Amino acid sequence: MKMIDLNCDMGEAFGNYTMPNDEKLMDYISSANIACGFHAGDPAVMQQTVALALKKGVAIGAHPGLPDLQGFGRRDMKITPNEAYQLTLYQIGALSGFVKAAGSKLHHVKTHGALYNMAAKDTVLAKAIVQAVYDFDPGLILYALAGSKMIDEAEKKGIVTASEVFADRSYQDDGLLTPRSADNALITNEEDAINQVLGFALNQEVDSINGNRIAVKAETVCLHGDGEHAVAFAKLIAERLQKEGIVIKAPAI
Amino acid sequence: MKMIDLNCDMGEAFGNYTMPNDEKLMDYISSANIACGFHAGDPAVMQQTVALALKKGVAIGAHPGLPDLQGFGRRDMKITPNEAYQLTLYQIGALSGFVKAAGSKLHHVKTHGALYNMAAKDTVLAKAIVQAVYDFDPGLILYALAGSKMIDEAEKKGIVTASEVFADRSYQDDGLLTPRSADNALITNEEDAINQVLGFALNQEVDSINGNRIAVKAETVCLHGDGEHAVAFAKLIAERLQKEGIVIKAPAI
Amino acid sequence: MKMIDLNCDMGEAFGNYTMPNDEKLMDYISSANIACGFHAGDPAVMQQTVALALKKGVAIGAHPGLPDLQGFGRRDMKITPNEAYQLTLYQIGALSGFVKAAGSKLHHVKTHGALYNMAAKDTVLAKAIVQAVYDFDPGLILYALAGSKMIDEAEKKGIVTASEVFADRSYQDDGLLTPRSADNALITNEEDAINQVLGFALNQEVDSINGNRIAVKAETVCLHGDGEHAVAFAKLIAERLQKEGIVIKAPAI
Amino acid sequence: MKMIDLNCDMGEAFGNYTMPNDEKLMDYISSANIACGFHAGDPAVMQQTVALALKKGVAIGAHPGLPDLQGFGRRDMKITPNEAYQLTLYQIGALSGFVKAAGSKLHHVKTHGALYNMAAKDTVLAKAIVQAVYDFDPGLILYALAGSKMIDEAEKKGIVTASEVFADRSYQDDGLLTPRSADNALITNEEDAINQVLGFALNQEVDSINGNRIAVKAETVCLHGDGEHAVAFAKLIAERLQKEGIVIKAPAI
Repeated sequence: MKMIDLNCDMGEAFGNYTMPNDEKLMDYISSANIACGFHAGDPAVMQQTVALALKKGVAIGAHPGLPDLQGFGRRDMKITPNEAYQLTLYQIGALSGFVKAAGSKLHHVKTHGALYNMAAKDTVLAKAIVQAVYDFDPGLILYALAGSKMIDEAEKKGIVTASEVFADRSYQDDGLLTPRSADNALITNEEDAINQVLGFALNQEVDSINGNRIAVKAETVCLHGDGEHAVAFAKLIAERLQKEGIVIKAPAI
Repeated sequence: MKMIDLNCDMGEAFGNYTMPNDEKLMDYISSANIACGFHAGDPAVMQQTVALALKKGVAIGAHPGLPDLQGFGRRDMKITPNEAYQLTLYQIGALSGFVKAAGSKLHHVKTHGALYNMAAKDTVLAKAIVQAVYDFDPGLILYALAGSKMIDEAEKKGIVTASEVFADRSYQDDGLLTPRSADNALITNEEDAINQVLGFALNQEVDSINGNRIAVKAETVCLHGDGEHAVAFAKLIAERLQKEGIVIKAPAI
Repeated sequence: MKMIDLNCDMGEAFGNYTMPNDEKLMDYISSANIACGFHAGDPAVMQQTVALALKKGVAIGAHPGLPDLQGFGRRDMKITPNEAYQLTLYQIGALSGFVKAAGSKLHHVKTHGALYNMAAKDTVLAKAIVQAVYDFDPGLILYALAGSKMIDEAEKKGIVTASEVFADRSYQDDGLLTPRSADNALITNEEDAINQVLGFALNQEVDSINGNRIAVKAETVCLHGDGEHAVAFAKLIAERLQKEGIVIKAPAI
Repeated sequence: MKMIDLNCDMGEAFGNYTMPNDEKLMDYISSANIACGFHAGDPAVMQQTVALALKKGVAIGAHPGLPDLQGFGRRDMKITPNEAYQLTLYQIGALSGFVKAAGSKLHHVKTHGALYNMAAKDTVLAKAIVQAVYDFDPGLILYALAGSKMIDEAEKKGIVTASEVFADRSYQDDGLLTPRSADNALITNEEDAINQVLGFALNQEVDSINGNRIAVKAETVCLHGDGEHAVAFAKLIAERLQKEGIVIKAPAI
């Protein structure tokens, strides 16, 4: 039986600012990465999003980001490995408080935005973040970019990983994402994006921008939660996967 | 054998701003209430303060405050019971991350500043905070003002409490603190403060501002960590208690 | 010639969180109260909103709030008069930077949320805020609740005021707003709201909840900028006022 | 008559955290760069520091930094030129509010920490910051690292500049600072530091780490305000400069 995980960043509302898609998206995804208050989210949003995920049977992950609310955690900051360790641990702990209070258990960790991207390429940063996850609970699963330093370091440490791929990003021959600066970095055609996801799920393969079929480790697919079409697209992906007999399911701890 | 707990607010540094007394105070106290980043503290300070407490064998408590860094959590804010629940749970979780990573376990919770004072008098707020403590871990001890609504609500919920008294605050005939607005609210004479602590520890008694000896539940004494004389005073208190054969010890979980 | 001002809180987006109505609303209002970064807004949003107001010929006001981004400045905080003075001055200065850089001049100040409501009733707080406005520029106009302490204190100081009334709030026989806790505090019928605005503009009168026609000083009408119908309602109000020959215009400095 | 400016970063306290040297340092310096709330400082501290500078006749500058209170504005952040423009303008405006309210006028701008260092090397960032200064008031003086892109861009724009040199940093043969990573980056011997300042003031010269006497544009000397010896060192520098007949004076607008 083929299976794949669909994950989405959730709980990225803040105070008076809402994220109206969250509730509906929970119907189609299997993993929720919940913001922890540094780049988005606040204690109220965290509590509500945890409750929502539990109600819909979606696996709950912490989604720590850089301390940059105005920049939504998307601006690189030159932090030390110690600082990366500390802010990751703080945010995992904070979210786990809500999960624990709701009688459940944290399932995974996925870093956000600039922290995700910096750690994908930086071994020292990756090692620090992996250590924070490990020190909190070595049984947590680390979601990270397929082929990244984060996956490498987590495996060295003995942490279970889920290699993440993207529905709407194109891939190079080396199996890595086409940089956003390139013209063909984004897949804007819906059918192309769906076919890419099916390729991930059925064959662990993707067609590169050069037209080559290449292998890629694809354990969890990131869906974007913002935008007008996010819910419709998530629904469509979920339906097509189910039609192909692929089970949408979070990785087992 | 007589025993009493000496607690002190710790980890109230932030970023570049240090709290130079913390390390030395750890030698004399038995409980540290560690700030969690809302009124003071940050992930780096929290990690360091947890490490320090563990090294010195001091019991670790979460010290959640209002989200008011500029006001040091000392300004009343009209928050809802839900908000009180959420910000307490968030901060307990965040600190517990560092405690867990260090291989230890959270011992108690004591709210800070305006949150402490508001909840002492407000049953609804007290109930919400107690529920957050309970939902995180019903085995945590709640430190709160002797005779307060917090103690009442925690007892109703079945949470173990430690009634807090103050070395440098005077008491009224009803066993409650003289309001700070009164001229004689503070005890500025060091010997008077020490005698008050000895009275708490030996007899669970205090001399009121009217000269009456009254009963007071005194399980933990709050020492102030800031100020030039804080360390010298903590040392003196500890020595005098030991001289009287009183054991300085955190309440057992 | 009858004239009235229509004001709206603007620039209350933050970072990644947008306020999609702002641009369209600018077509119907004569005064924009622009958030200054404490309860909402950030330097980018402030710059953009100032540019938008200038393009549409809308008078620009600073809209200082309490330092409470999560609570959107709506939670009462026990601040001192000094703190009220300081945070008002800081925020007026910050916004005026963008106005100055755009080659224009600040027109008015209107406090936000809890700061607005607390100062409406509290003479000492009102005096401090008025002093900040005066110290920055005695030629600024203060927008404040009709009949409030803010209006009183500003008049004492010799600052020009604009008494604010609400389209969608009901009034008591004493000319003050029905408290929000009452069932009939809000006017939900659109035609009733429009008629109330016409009554303000044409006759400086309002029908109280008890059915009495009472006098009210109505120099500027607050329109709400959020909600799905905000733009349609602003358009409708503007059209009806124009049909009655009432000029929509910010008070002259 | 020889003259030189002594500047110091001031008002970098925050909330409960004090900077005890500020008041005393004001006796020896001619320019104060006052933090504006992003990396340090808050509305209360800003008001007090402006008052102090005016009382002591010290020229007042805005000292904008990155929005990173925990990192004290010392961590590089990948901000866009627009963001640099906006955060600079916001902070200049905010400080100018206090200066205006105190009946005075802003004298200069000096960026802080990572913003200072990034803009020293990055033309695009420098141009954006210079534009913000210019748009606020083209008569402001820009203090920036001698030989930096900031000085270049300000001169292109026609803004008066003050080239900044350091008492306690060593210089290379190219007239630039020895990078902090080098062993000999810091001058720890007090007499060496004083002699370096005298060389700046008397001859616009410095002895490089290779022992060569090189020319350097030295219009303002940065003194550090933190540390135990900061006040004593400032006093010593001031006395030695006066003894040599050098006038300590902020550049004229």
